[in-house]
Amino acid sequence: MPRSTRSDFTATRARFQLPAGVVYLDGNSLGPLPRLAAARVAQVMTEHWGKDLIRAWTTAGWMTQPRRVGDRIAGLIGAEPGSVVMGDTLSIKVFQALAAALDLAPKRRVILTDSGNFPSDLYMAQGLIAALQQGHVLKCVAPNAVEANIAPDVAVLMLTEVDYRTGRLHDMARLTSMARACGVLTIWDLAHSAGALPVDLAAAGADFAVGCTYKFLNGGPGAPAFIYVAPRHQDRIRPALSGWLGHERPFAFEPDYQPGAGIERMRVGTPPVLALAALEASLDIWDAVTMPDVREASIRLSELLIAEVERRVPDLKLASPRAPAERGSQVSFAFDEGYAAMQALIGRGVIGDFRAPNIMRFGICPLYTTADDMRAAAAAIGEVMNGELWRQPEFQRRQAVT
Amino acid sequence: MPRSTRSDFTATRARFQLPAGVVYLDGNSLGPLPRLAAARVAQVMTEHWGKDLIRAWTTAGWMTQPRRVGDRIAGLIGAEPGSVVMGDTLSIKVFQALAAALDLAPKRRVILTDSGNFPSDLYMAQGLIAALQQGHVLKCVAPNAVEANIAPDVAVLMLTEVDYRTGRLHDMARLTSMARACGVLTIWDLAHSAGALPVDLAAAGADFAVGCTYKFLNGGPGAPAFIYVAPRHQDRIRPALSGWLGHERPFAFEPDYQPGAGIERMRVGTPPVLALAALEASLDIWDAVTMPDVREASIRLSELLIAEVERRVPDLKLASPRAPAERGSQVSFAFDEGYAAMQALIGRGVIGDFRAPNIMRFGICPLYTTADDMRAAAAAIGEVMNGELWRQPEFQRRQAVT
Repeated sequence: MPRSTRSDFTATRARFQLPAGVVYLDGNSLGPLPRLAAARVAQVMTEHWGKDLIRAWTTAGWMTQPRRVGDRIAGLIGAEPGSVVMGDTLSIKVFQALAAALDLAPKRRVILTDSGNFPSDLYMAQGLIAALQQGHVLKCVAPNAVEANIAPDVAVLMLTEVDYRTGRLHDMARLTSMARACGVLTIWDLAHSAGALPVDLAAAGADFAVGCTYKFLNGGPGAPAFIYVAPRHQDRIRPALSGWLGHERPFAFEPDYQPGAGIERMRVGTPPVLALAALEASLDIWDAVTMPDVREASIRLSELLIAEVERRVPDLKLASPRAPAERGSQVSFAFDEGYAAMQALIGRGVIGDFRAPNIMRFGICPLYTTADDMRAAAAAIGEVMNGELWRQPEFQRRQAVT
Repeated sequence: MPRSTRSDFTATRARFQLPAGVVYLDGNSLGPLPRLAAARVAQVMTEHWGKDLIRAWTTAGWMTQPRRVGDRIAGLIGAEPGSVVMGDTLSIKVFQALAAALDLAPKRRVILTDSGNFPSDLYMAQGLIAALQQGHVLKCVAPNAVEANIAPDVAVLMLTEVDYRTGRLHDMARLTSMARACGVLTIWDLAHSAGALPVDLAAAGADFAVGCTYKFLNGGPGAPAFIYVAPRHQDRIRPALSGWLGHERPFAFEPDYQPGAGIERMRVGTPPVLALAALEASLDIWDAVTMPDVREASIRLSELLIAEVERRVPDLKLASPRAPAERGSQVSFAFDEGYAAMQALIGRGVIGDFRAPNIMRFGICPLYTTADDMRAAAAAIGEVMNGELWRQPEFQRRQAVT
């Protein structure tokens, strides 16, 4: 689409099933249902699976689906064609990338990460380190201390670009460049980036990236994950999860593993066909927009929400960076009673979520989030925060318990 | 169901969508579509996902689905309640079980398996061994040499109960007992056992088991896998794939991994909700039958197929064991031109499959396979094997190429 054509977000919004009376600001946890997704999955089930049975692996293109969908994701994250493949969960993809990175850097022992990373990514690193018994260390520093800790003993810098609590956005280009200059590999978790803001993995020179597709990409609950490997590494990787569909000739049923060409070797087991079909329908919506337009709308909506909330509740502490350029596509506020406040908001039809210890989080997804949503959310936040909630018996009981 | 009530396989067959004119004998690769599965997935998408959005994780029971479905699988494989959980692919579950077993047996270095195992299982073992760099060895012997190779240096015996090529059935109880007597842990791959024949993991004393659900359990393409861990081991396991949903408190978002109680710690990432919904619908059909009835019907149908084929093509070599008790729920024939012959059969609507180098494979699934199917398949096999195929130009061309 030429840049002069603006993305039509009224049209994209119409492609989602959005319940009446709900302002949905939790698409960074689970995106809403694209209307076409249910029809697409039904077609795969009754037409392809039901009629073609085993033959559908070829007739319906199931076997090549992980690459085909991967190439569509690649287009959203600035990845080279043929460098992204779908499958498994984000946790498994983190494990794959990390195991491969450590194998590529056999003389270094530090995995550098930050406290803004998903705990789940840290868990996967901890499990891998314990299994390997090779003396690796997971070094977890504050987000603003990452730069200072990039050092020659670091094998891999593993970061999530957008902090799931605050929305703080790392400077991927700068950190990747610093890492490369020090011989440090990078793994970028794009869980809150893919579909949320422009990403350019190739330009940044990233080594690995991983992400899920059930948040901003609206692939559905438990939708499959993706992994990116820079083309320069693909044929050097020795997959720790050496699955049969990553084999060079899976249907030769040979006794020894031989990695497939390029990104194919990052496939593991049989692909999740139904979930990938739902995701394919969801990705159709992205064909109608550009990421710069999405980013522009995201910032406009986020700024509106912040202004409207702060006008009503001046004391509420913004937990997200104030500068739009330093923020992903979410707005977070810190409030000690955030859990109770979020429950009250959900009761009013404004669905965001709470993240321990004190973060009220609102995801902004321009494909379906509108300026009216921002105003309605701010009004509800004002009602709850300025209202009688804190004197209600239910809240007092909860206080007594915790 | 009391044993005096016989399973009604006419009723179960009616619950599948089976294309007219097709005799489907490839349900050991991909089971057919249960009619209810499409409706169930549509309901989850439009009602639960579409209307409840993020709330469906609790309102629709998505978060507990892997355990709930696991308990239903447990009932089919003689596993204790609370000892099976769903997720990922079979390859990932093999990796999990193997990593856990090696960790439980730190002084032993041999993984014993046989040449009748799925190559995919061997690949996963090879990848794990290479990653660990701890001197483990994968020892792959002939199926009839397994017993003689159970020895004190063996950490784990990893076998697939039913050989995917020949259908040869291992004696799980005997081999597990021999292994235990020698301090050897066992991992049983039940890919061609679950839903195919009675399995009693608890009685056998198995340590681990894994399996997929898209074959005899009819869960659909890429349906999730399962893992069994004997209750005596569950709280001793240190998961190599330490995912957030296996954490004791996943939503506390703590920085350090703490394994959850029991089988929960074998969960990794976000569960594949849509695929699990399809599987749940498929499992409903199993509530109406008993595994002894399924086994009895499977043997009756298999014997009929063998007799009908051998009557027509006396020279065709049976690749499966002749004794029903030594066979899973499939019948295989060895034929050097099996690939071409199978293509000709598929052209006639009899769908089995071919496995290199020379195996023509026919899966028997009493939930929908009938005696008429056996006679029709045998008739087609007779036509193809005794017919003009081998003199046709297309076949001659193929011969010239290969």
